[in-house]
Amino acid sequence: MTKTNAGRFFEDYAVGQVIRHAVPRTISGGERALYHALYPARGALYSSDAFAGASGLPAAPIDDLAAFHVVFGKTVPDVSLNAVANLGYAEGRWLQPVYAGDTLRSESEVIGVKQNSNGKSGVVWVRTRGLNQRDETVMEYVRWVMVRKRDLDAPAPATVIPELAPAVPAEMLVVPEGLNFSSYDFDLAGEPHRWGDYAVGEQIDHVDGVTIEEAEHMLATRLWQNTAKVHFDATFRPDGKRLIYGGHVISMARALSFNGLANAQVIAGLNGGAHANPCFAGDTVRAWSEVLDRAETGAPGVGALRLRLVATTGEAFALRGEDGKYLPEVLLDLDYWALVPM
Amino acid sequence: MTKTNAGRFFEDYAVGQVIRHAVPRTISGGERALYHALYPARGALYSSDAFAGASGLPAAPIDDLAAFHVVFGKTVPDVSLNAVANLGYAEGRWLQPVYAGDTLRSESEVIGVKQNSNGKSGVVWVRTRGLNQRDETVMEYVRWVMVRKRDLDAPAPATVIPELAPAVPAEMLVVPEGLNFSSYDFDLAGEPHRWGDYAVGEQIDHVDGVTIEEAEHMLATRLWQNTAKVHFDATFRPDGKRLIYGGHVISMARALSFNGLANAQVIAGLNGGAHANPCFAGDTVRAWSEVLDRAETGAPGVGALRLRLVATTGEAFALRGEDGKYLPEVLLDLDYWALVPM
Amino acid sequence: MTKTNAGRFFEDYAVGQVIRHAVPRTISGGERALYHALYPARGALYSSDAFAGASGLPAAPIDDLAAFHVVFGKTVPDVSLNAVANLGYAEGRWLQPVYAGDTLRSESEVIGVKQNSNGKSGVVWVRTRGLNQRDETVMEYVRWVMVRKRDLDAPAPATVIPELAPAVPAEMLVVPEGLNFSSYDFDLAGEPHRWGDYAVGEQIDHVDGVTIEEAEHMLATRLWQNTAKVHFDATFRPDGKRLIYGGHVISMARALSFNGLANAQVIAGLNGGAHANPCFAGDTVRAWSEVLDRAETGAPGVGALRLRLVATTGEAFALRGEDGKYLPEVLLDLDYWALVPM
Repeated sequence: MTKTNAGRFFEDYAVGQVIRHAVPRTISGGERALYHALYPARGALYSSDAFAGASGLPAAPIDDLAAFHVVFGKTVPDVSLNAVANLGYAEGRWLQPVYAGDTLRSESEVIGVKQNSNGKSGVVWVRTRGLNQRDETVMEYVRWVMVRKRDLDAPAPATVIPELAPAVPAEMLVVPEGLNFSSYDFDLAGEPHRWGDYAVGEQIDHVDGVTIEEAEHMLATRLWQNTAKVHFDATFRPDGKRLIYGGHVISMARALSFNGLANAQVIAGLNGGAHANPCFAGDTVRAWSEVLDRAETGAPGVGALRLRLVATTGEAFALRGEDGKYLPEVLLDLDYWALVPM
Repeated sequence: MTKTNAGRFFEDYAVGQVIRHAVPRTISGGERALYHALYPARGALYSSDAFAGASGLPAAPIDDLAAFHVVFGKTVPDVSLNAVANLGYAEGRWLQPVYAGDTLRSESEVIGVKQNSNGKSGVVWVRTRGLNQRDETVMEYVRWVMVRKRDLDAPAPATVIPELAPAVPAEMLVVPEGLNFSSYDFDLAGEPHRWGDYAVGEQIDHVDGVTIEEAEHMLATRLWQNTAKVHFDATFRPDGKRLIYGGHVISMARALSFNGLANAQVIAGLNGGAHANPCFAGDTVRAWSEVLDRAETGAPGVGALRLRLVATTGEAFALRGEDGKYLPEVLLDLDYWALVPM
Repeated sequence: MTKTNAGRFFEDYAVGQVIRHAVPRTISGGERALYHALYPARGALYSSDAFAGASGLPAAPIDDLAAFHVVFGKTVPDVSLNAVANLGYAEGRWLQPVYAGDTLRSESEVIGVKQNSNGKSGVVWVRTRGLNQRDETVMEYVRWVMVRKRDLDAPAPATVIPELAPAVPAEMLVVPEGLNFSSYDFDLAGEPHRWGDYAVGEQIDHVDGVTIEEAEHMLATRLWQNTAKVHFDATFRPDGKRLIYGGHVISMARALSFNGLANAQVIAGLNGGAHANPCFAGDTVRAWSEVLDRAETGAPGVGALRLRLVATTGEAFALRGEDGKYLPEVLLDLDYWALVPM
């Protein structure tokens, strides 16, 4: 009997199933330093204990996306090893910051299954939670993937399609306990723009670009203990290219968005996202954003902006062609909520 | 007089000599994070303080191989700067875990010398110990290398060939103090296979492969303060290739072996090892294992497996040709003891 | 109105102006580990808490150049985003070590401006200070850069050229509080050479070379939150090459200088420096040093050496051509003070 994990196939999932994912991970200053080496991340709240302290937090947390990657990485062997496509995200919320010393693990509940009409694969929806060493949920999100069947003759399960919110309602966002932007230092943060300076519909070109190297995306992806073959093994795809983990593109684009959104300090919600086209080493990734919505939060000096973040190898503000499909140069279309000083 | 270190030559070694190696090193969460970025390492005990705590340890140690690399790296300027070949390892034992905050240094005792019949080089055996800030030995191993002579007319020393155990006897293995696998969480560890599930002779294909980049192996090798020219300077070898530090291949193969050996948590003994062929950037490294022996340890729930770990750029389970020599695609043949839940 | 930062142009600077730079940064063991992975750094004082403790310090500080890079990186968006050239350094002093847990920020005062005769650009001198979380200055230096004008019709400011010391006088060097080399362990440090063993005029070939990869210099440059486009975006320059951050070359050369200057533990002063020629991935960087001066410091067992550090892709000791210009293979000519055991 083979001892290696071949991963779950479509017929192995059933609604209600809870999967405890392997390999808990303790975060240290090392993960934070590496995040800064891998991405041009400059958010002051996550860079400086002193800035975080002045904002009411006990210390600088790790980047919200680093927390996301750690939680996500653990799900790969159980959820997406045999995935054909990563179809979407919804209802993502960060519920509390993650600090050096915290240990994260992940659990996923299967909340939907739908076999494809071709009988060869199906869509699986999971709600994943990241938990810390006190069993508190630090973040959660829904993801759905298309997964191959192992046995094409396995009977199709009853279709269950979960009802998902098109966006996390602003009143459901959780502001980190104690967060207070009322004495926010805009000089140290890097830009003067407040919540009130951003108008719905406004578009921002983040100007900078980064040309990605193989070594970098592999370091990043391994750091999150995401070990999907396709990111590491140049012999796996017929074209000899290693596909870059979609989360690497998310973090790169988010870091690039500092230039224009330096004060979008905290990610509080993930409304949706599409990895529109694959990204490969040698691509020069750029980013642009669009303000989709604004909301107050009740926390002192803290507002929320709903933002579209687009990663592209092409021109800013181009997104879809006349056929309504993503342009080939668009890598990522992400919809999230950020917390911003008012 | 030149101030740079030209390294020791064969005639500079004498049996009984003890060399205190330079540059002690304090370990932090940074080294641990980098280890996870450089290798697809997923052993739960070394990833999670919580998992380590549940296993009776005060915190997650650094990977045993990281400890080995730190200890080994310090010996390079004194032992292998003028080495023609790294011939073998024996009698390696990990005597206590290394934690963040520990400071490691290394000492080597020359235990054997034998001039080659060509009079141009000789073999030197050293027993190296890694010591922590309390002068406790954290690991030890014997290594032998072929070293050039500086002065071909230097007289040959009396030949001393140390008697080395073909393998560390199971009863000599040291289980980390407090280690207890009796309430081991197999879900969090990633696989259900216990000590009793592995049969002597069983072979495991670890399936995954990693294509190695220059930047990665140089980051790794520098991290261990191993500064042998051949790993860094593309002008050093006539073919313009940088030779990858053999220890990088060991760590890569060991990390890949998670898939099938996720519960082989702790490395306790190094019985032997051969760097069968050189590894270069661009190679896609795969790994397979063979169970060589099993033993009990007396510690609660802790068994030992003696494992052969083979790194290869070719097919699993292929090792030697009809001539008895390693096949050209075999990079590493390592023989070690791991501690496994029973 | 655009929200992205286009950087300051020549006419935006005025003598006396103080710029508080953005994005404070808390240092951890992660930054230290990465420094060791990026450079072949082996200085014992910065590698080992135990060695630092035996030298009178509370713990191993981060490398002085790492502190410099963190301080420098923050100035880039305000000082050199529209720089045509980085012209020089002077009057640099390290005033206290930086430890894990410290948070650094930077401030620069404009101390000189001089419009070029072509009316299109000018030279700006700034004195930059790095401050910790207690608002203590940890280091300071003067840098001058040539900056483009935004509006060619903007009036030329009154020329102010600061008087700068050709070198930091030895009596102005600050020895870290408590530093004591009187029971220095030369074995652990790696070389036997004391302050008295170095003669003014002596030249040292550091022998080793490192071939630089794109991924490495980008990781390093991002780690210091230096996000100048030219280092990351392969589409930015017409030749498709990414220019390597000059500080990466400084750190690489300094780390290589261990071989011959292992006991030049602490950098206390930066007298001057020229990035003589650009460095690109694929270059094999070597280093040589020249002893320029010697001084006593009054601290127990601590002497100072003034050193020229040259990074080159060519032969040791070659520096300038017959025309007095730097040879094309010379990358860096740095003049600094180091603290050395007597």
